[in-house]
Formats: sequence, C-alpha cells, structure tokens
Amino acid sequence: MRHMDSMRQKAAIEIPMSDIPEKTGGNHTPPDYERIFHPRRLAIIGVSAEGSGAGFGTGIFKSITTMGFAGEILPVNPKGGSIDGLTIFKSVADIPGDIDFAVIAVAARYVPEALEACLKKGAAGAEIISSGFSELDTEEGKTLEAQIKEIAARGIRVVGPNCFGIYCPASGLTLLPGPDLSRESGPVAFLAQSGGMAIDFAHAGKWMGIRFSKMVSFGNGADLRETDLLRYFKNDPETKVIAMYIEGIQNGQTFFNEIREAADKKPVIVYKGGLSRAGARTVASHTASMGGSGVIWDSVLKQVHAIRVRDAEEMAQASLAFALLPPKEFRKISVIGGGGAIGVAACDLAEACGIEIPPLAPELQARIDSCLPKPGSSAVNPVDVANPFVPPPYLKEILLAAAQDEQIDLQIIVSLLYHYKSVAKTFNKKVAEITPYKELVQSVCDAANETGKPIIAVLANPKRGVEDLDIVEMIALARKEFTDRGIPVFDELHDAIRAIAHVNTYYGTKAHRKE
Amino acid sequence: MRHMDSMRQKAAIEIPMSDIPEKTGGNHTPPDYERIFHPRRLAIIGVSAEGSGAGFGTGIFKSITTMGFAGEILPVNPKGGSIDGLTIFKSVADIPGDIDFAVIAVAARYVPEALEACLKKGAAGAEIISSGFSELDTEEGKTLEAQIKEIAARGIRVVGPNCFGIYCPASGLTLLPGPDLSRESGPVAFLAQSGGMAIDFAHAGKWMGIRFSKMVSFGNGADLRETDLLRYFKNDPETKVIAMYIEGIQNGQTFFNEIREAADKKPVIVYKGGLSRAGARTVASHTASMGGSGVIWDSVLKQVHAIRVRDAEEMAQASLAFALLPPKEFRKISVIGGGGAIGVAACDLAEACGIEIPPLAPELQARIDSCLPKPGSSAVNPVDVANPFVPPPYLKEILLAAAQDEQIDLQIIVSLLYHYKSVAKTFNKKVAEITPYKELVQSVCDAANETGKPIIAVLANPKRGVEDLDIVEMIALARKEFTDRGIPVFDELHDAIRAIAHVNTYYGTKAHRKE
Repeated sequence: MRHMDSMRQKAAIEIPMSDIPEKTGGNHTPPDYERIFHPRRLAIIGVSAEGSGAGFGTGIFKSITTMGFAGEILPVNPKGGSIDGLTIFKSVADIPGDIDFAVIAVAARYVPEALEACLKKGAAGAEIISSGFSELDTEEGKTLEAQIKEIAARGIRVVGPNCFGIYCPASGLTLLPGPDLSRESGPVAFLAQSGGMAIDFAHAGKWMGIRFSKMVSFGNGADLRETDLLRYFKNDPETKVIAMYIEGIQNGQTFFNEIREAADKKPVIVYKGGLSRAGARTVASHTASMGGSGVIWDSVLKQVHAIRVRDAEEMAQASLAFALLPPKEFRKISVIGGGGAIGVAACDLAEACGIEIPPLAPELQARIDSCLPKPGSSAVNPVDVANPFVPPPYLKEILLAAAQDEQIDLQIIVSLLYHYKSVAKTFNKKVAEITPYKELVQSVCDAANETGKPIIAVLANPKRGVEDLDIVEMIALARKEFTDRGIPVFDELHDAIRAIAHVNTYYGTKAHRKE
Repeated sequence: MRHMDSMRQKAAIEIPMSDIPEKTGGNHTPPDYERIFHPRRLAIIGVSAEGSGAGFGTGIFKSITTMGFAGEILPVNPKGGSIDGLTIFKSVADIPGDIDFAVIAVAARYVPEALEACLKKGAAGAEIISSGFSELDTEEGKTLEAQIKEIAARGIRVVGPNCFGIYCPASGLTLLPGPDLSRESGPVAFLAQSGGMAIDFAHAGKWMGIRFSKMVSFGNGADLRETDLLRYFKNDPETKVIAMYIEGIQNGQTFFNEIREAADKKPVIVYKGGLSRAGARTVASHTASMGGSGVIWDSVLKQVHAIRVRDAEEMAQASLAFALLPPKEFRKISVIGGGGAIGVAACDLAEACGIEIPPLAPELQARIDSCLPKPGSSAVNPVDVANPFVPPPYLKEILLAAAQDEQIDLQIIVSLLYHYKSVAKTFNKKVAEITPYKELVQSVCDAANETGKPIIAVLANPKRGVEDLDIVEMIALARKEFTDRGIPVFDELHDAIRAIAHVNTYYGTKAHRKE
C-alpha cells in the first residue's frame, strides 16, 4: 500500500491538469446539435437485409424503429435488399437528397469510407458504433482513428468510435442495445465515455424516475467529447442537471474552464473512473484515455464546484435529487417511519453529512403523538411510528404537523410496505392487492403540496427472494406511483441522505459564490 | 457543525469506555442456553382464543406454529378458550409439569406477574416481547423494568423486554413477525438491540444465502444482553461468524474483554448505532441505551480486531463473505466480466481497499484471448468479455486460465444477465426461460472446484421497473442457484470488493497477532 500511495503522490506532482497533452482533432466546424439530436433524415450504415444475419447495425436499426423514431430512416448495405418494408441503399451516395445524421456500424476498416460518404451527403454528424480503433493500441487501429479525425475536421462532427451513440428521448434516437428506453424527456443530461455506463444509467433512470434530455456515449472521443458536450449542455435550455462519467480528458485547461462555467449555471455531477494504477491501465484499453490522479481530480472538482460521486448508484441517486428537489439547501429535516433502528441510523448518517434532525416543537410532538400507536412509538423526530400498518391518513397528519415546525426544510418518510406480505398471506392474495400504496402516495403528495415542503420516500425491502417477488412488484408499482408525481424514492435511507447532502453542497457553495 | 463537533469531542473525553456505568441486573444463574434455544415445552402468554382478535401474542403463536416448531406449545390467556386445536391455559400455573421457555406478550403491567409464574414453573428463560418499560422514560416503565430484573435475578434468564425475541432455525423459534424465516441453520449468529434490524437481516439473509445459527433481539436488555451473548456465541460450535447491532452497552470493560476474546476465536462484525447527538437521543427512546462516541468506538473496535461496518447492508455483505469464503486473505484477484467501465471501477475500488488486480501472465492472457469475441474485449485483468452473451463454457475456460496465475487468490465474475431481456423479447418469452443462468452457475462452480480458488459472482441489474420484473425474477433464481452451491453473490461489484476487504482486515491482523 505504501508503494501505491507514493506512486499516486508522484503522479499528482508530475501530471498537473494543464499539462495533460492535447490530442485535439482540430475540427472547427461548429456542431449543428439540432440536426445531430433531432435528425429528420437518418442513415444507418451496416443494416443487414431481412433474414441475412444481424450485426450491431441491424441491432441499432431495430432499436431505433422500436423506439418510434420520428424522422426518416435510410438503411445502407452494399448487398442491398430490404428490411421492415424499407429498401436498403447499396451506398450512402445512392440516398436521394441530403442526410442529417448517420449511424455507422460497419467493420473498422470500412468506417473512414462510410464517414467520407456521409460528409459528402451533407450530414451534420455521425455516430460510429464500431470498435477496433485506438483502444486496441495497434498501428492499424490508431491509423484508422487518425483517418476519422481527418475526415471529421473537414466538416462532419463525430460521436465515437467504440461507443453506444446518442439517446434522445424527444427524437427517438437510442443507444445501441436500447429499444426499451423511455421516450419521456426530462432535465438530466448524461455524457460518458462508456457505453455500458450510459445504457445502465438510462435503464436505472427509467425505474428511478429520472428523465433525460440527452445522453451521449462518446467512446474513444475522436472528435466530440467532454469539453464540447459540456459547452452544449451548459446552454441547452432542456438540461437542468449535467451528469458525466469520464475516464480521461483531452485538454485539462479547456476542460477546467468549461466545467467551471457549466457548474456556475447548473449542477454538474462527475463520476471519474480510472484513478488507480490498474484502473488507468484498464482505461487505456477501454476508451484509449488517460486516467490522471485522484488527488488532482478531487481538488479540481472542488474548485469548480462540481459534485464528485464514487460509483454509478451514487451518480444516479444524486441526479434524482437534483432533478426533483427545488434548488436550495435542506439543512434540517424530519424523518418519519417505522423502526427505532432506522431513526437511529438516520441521525447518525445525517449528522455525518451536516444535516440535522432536530426535535420538533413540543406542541407539534403532542399533535403527532395523538396519531401514533402505543407503546413503542416516538413523536420527537425521528418520528417512530412503531408499526408498519399505520394508515396513510394518519401519516399525512404527521407529515402536516412536522412541516409546521419552521426549522424543517424537507421530510423523509420511510415506509416498510413489505410487512404487508404477512397480511397478504393470511388472505391468500398478492401483496400489491392489499397494500395501500396508492393511498400512501396520495397522502404523501397531499402533504407535500399543502405544506410546500418537499418529501422524499424511502421504500426499503429486505425481502427479495424467489418467494417474495410479489413484494418486489408491489414496491416497483409504489415507486412508479411516487415518481410519476415527482416524489423522489430511494431504496435506502442512507442513499437519500447522501443525495440531499450533494444538493446542499452545490447550493451551499453557490450561495457563497454569490455573496 | 462546529458546535456538534465540540460536543462530540467533549463526549469522547468525558465518557471513556471503562467509566460507562454498570447497570447490572445482578443475575448470577448461568443461562441454560440449550433449554432457551431448543425448548421442549414452550409457553406463549397472551394468545387470544380463535375469533377473539389478534395481538402480538397471537402473532408470535402463529409465527412459531407456521415455522413448524418441534416442541410442545402451551398457549396461555386468562380468558381460556382454544386456538388451532390447542387448549389455552388460563394461567401459567395451570400448565401441567415444567416449562423450558416462555414468550411473554401481555400488556407491560402484567409482565412481572407472568414472569414470576414462569420462574415458578421452572423455565430456564423467557423472552418479553411487550414494550412499555424503561424506553418510555416514565416512572411506571422504569419500575416495571426493575421488577423484571429482580425476578430474573432469582433464577430465570430474560431476553427483552421491548424486543422481537429469539430466532433459532434448528428449533423453529422465530422473531415476532417472522413466520416465513428459513429453517436452515448456518454459521452466522446475530445479536441486536433492535428487533427491526433482526427481522430485516433474517429476511435479507434468506435471499442472500446467509444461514444463521441463532439470532437474539434483546431490546432493552434488562437481563441477557451483548456481553452474555458474545460469551455464548464465542463458544457455540455452530457459530462461525458473529454479527451484532448495538445501540449502547452496559459495561464497557467487561464488553471490551468479551469482544476481544470472541474476535480472537471468530470474526465479529459490529454495526454501532447512535453515535450522533440526535442518534444518542433516539437510542434512549428506542432501547433505553447510552450511545457513546464514534471516536471511542472506532479505536476500541480496532483494538479488539472487530470489523466495523457502517450500515445494515454492509453488515449483511460482510457476513456473507465471512460465512462463505475460506478463512484467509485475498490480496490479488481477477475480475472477469462484461463492460469496460466495470473493469475500471473494479480497479479503482480494489486499490482503495488494498486489493490488487494484476495483469495476468502473458501466456494465460493469450489463452484467454482465444475465448473472447473481437474487437472490444481485453484479456489483461480485468478481463473484459465485451459481450454479455459469451456462452458459460467459454467463461469457465477463462476462469480456469486466470486461476492458473499463481498470484490470483480469488476471482470475481461480473455477469450482465439482464441483457438477455432483449433476446427474450425477440422470442416473446420470459427472460428466465432463455437466460442460461443454470449453465453459468454450473460453469462457475466447476471452475471453483477444479481450481480450488474461490469465485464470487456479481449479478448487477439496472432494470427493475414494472416492465422488467421478469429480470428481477431471473436474477433471484440465478442468485439462489449460486448461493445454494456456496458461491457468494453480490448486487454490485463495490459491495463484493468491500466485503473481501473486511475478510482481509480480519485474517490479516489475525496473522499478525499470531506471529
């Protein structure tokens, strides 16, 4: 360990951000993002005709059609044929008229030719899904990637290669394996070198209630990459929160300036991968990037007021909180729910995050106490309801009372709905049929609306075995009901508190910056 | 915050462990744990007759009968009647012959009388589920608890009051709301002041593949509590790992000695609640305990070589690792799976935990490379299989090859089975029908057996929405298949690595202690 630490320190001294070498593609054509994200005419190059096998090109064609893409799709393959009633053009040149954007999914050695054809067809951009470029660390791979850059520099903006492409709910563009992503747009933009990270975040966002403006997985980032995309999302009116997963950056100084400007305007959440020795080695083979050191990243991100997260779950949870909570600090909160140990844990976690769970005013405690079963409950704050079957209208009364305490900025309700399984068993029903989750959602929404103070729901579930999948289903239904109405839901209390702490960090330093 | 920090420091200075006041019940009867955990004759006091309402007493009666408790159950209620074909005795005195153990679930004010009756009937112990004692901080509650202690001191050992009682898979004793807990015994003992924590851990353990020797939720701990139970579990041959959730301790010095002795013999995992100001306040109303400061706890637990965890999930994950992995350190590991970003994250996390993911020997890399799809894969370590559909026999070949590298102590396989959903959709099937999870389990088990090096599986699932519940089901089935064969499964790679790090900490310091 000592050896590793000294390595790390050495790296910190030897590679300050501004010295990370530029490997600019030299493309000075301003990207026409309108035609890139909302193409009216989309070429997909590498689509096989019906019944003749299915590679990535056919996969992305199927995904984009399944998503109900609004524009015109123009499949291309030298062998011609047809698919889903569409004629496959034998070359890009054969397409009548201009194209706006292209998806390129052919073997690496054919990519430059395809890209050149798209440039000639007037495309504003292309995403190159194919891999086999600089990430291989071979002469052939590097040469091919240099050719891509050279073509891009002549006026077509490139996403990739070695990526999963663009997801834009509004237009119906989707990631490589993403036929089932949501078509609902929302406030969160995501940019990532990793396609896997993008598709996982898109899926997780769907059930967590995170809606996306746009996602761009840019892989090796031969042309468009972190700095360009930050610049775009900073000014994109649809985007309120920017999340990013980066393995390496191209130009330290420009990136530094861009992320600072973006974070001045909206929250920027950063998950940085590849900070360890082995991680940096893996980054090289994954997206041909340069890792950098943890020490540098920590201080740089703090300096620019970006929010640093440590894993994909924390990134998603922070995105959810930023997307659904009002833009302010929440320093004092109430926690209402079942289980004394949950309350204890809430307090420990909150204090560690600079959040207080103060005792409520005595008269409010008395009012709450009148709604609670006895003995075993506590009205202080955390409010221990002692019993998972307290009817939702009582919970609403408690939420209304606690919100009357001026100190309270936000409330968390911890619901142990899974306990209804034992009731369901007694009546021989599925748990979703007897759990009053709709009433719970209604009560929580009413309380949030009537008090104007946000409420977060925690739907814990320690029962996920094969005999308890009906509980998983019920929790999923309850979560959807909550998130459809704008109430953020977390699996665990500590996830909720950590996410609030990120929101506090951002708006706390923002307030300071303005003073 | 500054104020809170100074409070904390003050507490650290003012309450060193050895000065925490004793509040010993003064019970010197050695507990007859055989009759407590495996009672032949069990009285349940507070069971209502059929059709006359159902309180906690009836609840625990139903739970214990549903579990298939092996001994004789003797329900008691002054109103008499019958339940499930059993006569309800009007008093404990009416029961013919002796009893071994009793569950007391009557209103607090009737508890002393019931306990006295159990003592007269020769019971070795009783669990008091009722609440309404010192946790209320009322004179009446404190007096009632003092009466319990006084009776206990005359020769009956008490678990509780204000607890969910004992879970013993071998005998069929179960926690208050636990009719569906596992009857399979295993190596993990759990002791907790919190009943909610116990029931949640029992449920989570069931699907995670953690089997328990015994669980004791002791609530206010008027008699038997942390020190007694540590002493018992230390010598219990059935128990290989001890996990505990504690809010406060009774006698610092005795506890310190007992946990040191226990941790010398077997891993002791400690989740300590109530370390913040608000947490300590909540602890008082939850189980009438004294919290103590985080600084003290950290140093004490380190000194006695106990493993400190920060939340219930981390406790369960560490328990799983200790229960299923061989008792040694795992300093160099291989990670095999899909997704370059996963490999990057693995390296970052591992390095932070003192675990290395070293490049494999070149000849083994070549052998692995021959099993991998191209391009996009990497055979270095982490091994990026690039495609979630690599057939299990190939994965087995990769695991066999990587294990041949002498450096490797343990392997992690990250499987993205959820991607089979798109295949299932194409064929209009449920994902469990087409996912080769059984073959995967077989391949992983074969590789572990043939190489003698343990393998951990990570079954990530970013798709948990209402349309993707078939994936949740398939993952649950796959997990069960793995855990039934002794392969630990985690949801996320970082959980797995953190759990391995705990195992390393314990066996690493253990080796030092022996040197």
